[in-house]
Amino acid sequence: MKVFSKAQIVASFNPALAVSRLEEGFIAYSEGAVQVPPVQAFAFTGANGDCCVKSAYIEGSPTFTVKLSTGFYDNPAKGLPSNDGLMLVLSALTGQPLALLQDQGWLTGMRTALAGRIAARLLAPDQVKAIGILGTGMQAQMQLEQLRAVTDCRQVVVWGRHESGLAAYATFARELGFEVRSTQDSAEVAGAANLIVCTTPSRQPLLHSEWVQPGTHITAVGADAPGKQELDPALVARADRIIVDSVAQCSQYGEVAHALDSGRIKANQLIELGALLAGRAKGREHDGQITLADLTGVAVQDTQVASCALAALGT
Amino acid sequence: MKVFSKAQIVASFNPALAVSRLEEGFIAYSEGAVQVPPVQAFAFTGANGDCCVKSAYIEGSPTFTVKLSTGFYDNPAKGLPSNDGLMLVLSALTGQPLALLQDQGWLTGMRTALAGRIAARLLAPDQVKAIGILGTGMQAQMQLEQLRAVTDCRQVVVWGRHESGLAAYATFARELGFEVRSTQDSAEVAGAANLIVCTTPSRQPLLHSEWVQPGTHITAVGADAPGKQELDPALVARADRIIVDSVAQCSQYGEVAHALDSGRIKANQLIELGALLAGRAKGREHDGQITLADLTGVAVQDTQVASCALAALGT
Repeated sequence: MKVFSKAQIVASFNPALAVSRLEEGFIAYSEGAVQVPPVQAFAFTGANGDCCVKSAYIEGSPTFTVKLSTGFYDNPAKGLPSNDGLMLVLSALTGQPLALLQDQGWLTGMRTALAGRIAARLLAPDQVKAIGILGTGMQAQMQLEQLRAVTDCRQVVVWGRHESGLAAYATFARELGFEVRSTQDSAEVAGAANLIVCTTPSRQPLLHSEWVQPGTHITAVGADAPGKQELDPALVARADRIIVDSVAQCSQYGEVAHALDSGRIKANQLIELGALLAGRAKGREHDGQITLADLTGVAVQDTQVASCALAALGT
Repeated sequence: MKVFSKAQIVASFNPALAVSRLEEGFIAYSEGAVQVPPVQAFAFTGANGDCCVKSAYIEGSPTFTVKLSTGFYDNPAKGLPSNDGLMLVLSALTGQPLALLQDQGWLTGMRTALAGRIAARLLAPDQVKAIGILGTGMQAQMQLEQLRAVTDCRQVVVWGRHESGLAAYATFARELGFEVRSTQDSAEVAGAANLIVCTTPSRQPLLHSEWVQPGTHITAVGADAPGKQELDPALVARADRIIVDSVAQCSQYGEVAHALDSGRIKANQLIELGALLAGRAKGREHDGQITLADLTGVAVQDTQVASCALAALGT
């Protein structure tokens, strides 16, 4: 079994290639051509941590992938990053473990950001006035980096709870070439931006329907487990198009779950990203529409990003 | 993350210590003190293979474990073993991966054999006339090795489909100090032995009720996935005590599942091994009773055997 470090993975990774592999993965998933066993989730309440194991096999592929990701939210006080993780790639022909990617959660962050990039390319309005980002962490950074490939807009409005996080994010975004406005009022993001990405582990809505302008596209990636929520269910209900990475998963714990549970939307309104990519469903039709991409993260993304990383590493 | 090879793991492993750790694990599991997310199972039909991912966390433990095991049954023709696998041990305090045990499935085999040893110690009749083994593979060997610790009997009757497998097993068993009788007729095993271990991936009953003598204990470890079956459901129904490693899992796909499905037994007859070990249930009461241990393999065994292996490796 070959073992690769995060530094090796990051140095060789090709995001553009990964976008096309992820698109193929989403399409295969929505066509039912992927084995995706149930997610394994642990809660370590005493340590304020969690772990999930996501595994997938695209039928006919020579490999399959098992991905572990952890989030331990008291780690920063111990001098450790909150997130960690790794991916294992095994042969689907002999069962042998082929590669261990010790990416420390970086590939999970990257595949999430690339899904946001794909959603924005398909759904963002033609004229992006400003990009709005909720959150100031690693995923908030990765999303902004990836959005540069799909819009010329270089205005960003970032929301965070803490001055220190906002200051660090502003420095990061300026170095990427953005004009930055920081705020602790999320209504301000909705007032200024018409391409908004929500990246927080919030358990209460941060973005209310009445704040959001017609024509806005929103990508929400934070609600990756039960109890998490970034959007007002009324905003979900107001969206003209509701795109999800997985109907099954988003119905359980995405933003969409809250709106379904309260009866504000119906399951038949949900469109999978794979169906949109395959041309089997309509996306944005005009600049007045509100579109939503609810991305909870599916294991087929891990499989695809892992094989993409291995290809770049010459394996 | 520390990485250990199969050779290192095998050389330092302490089966007696592992027995007590497994017993603690079974008890914790039956008391509901273990997080055991759903098993992830893949089927690779074209390659005649499967993979399962089993994960567990004993509440309060400093670590948790994710185990992968594969079975690719055409591998021997390619010069590869059928089974492979590995275990990952992570910190339950920070989420960091601590150790990779590249045991190639050996620890899974060992924890299964040790569960058989525990079941035989608790349930076998006082006077074992002969040990019966169905199957001639690695697990058939490991079970016999472990049974030496719980019975003085050194007579073994082994059943297999092929002469070559039987001959190799006879050589192995003689080297362990056994007198060996080989047969291709499983009725002969039931006629001679009153401690029988079934270790095959059979999909049809190999052992019929009318062949089995009063007083026999049977441990069945082969039915670890849907569709597998080694015992006649009438034999399961005839047992005076039905011990299972997991009521939930055995009800889905153990020997017990077939007897439950056909209405021959009721769920309230099932006794978990952990309850027996904790003294909360009765085992064998006299030498005329037939007892059955249906062991499908639970993730808490993997967690315990992994931490035991790491302790022996000085970690």
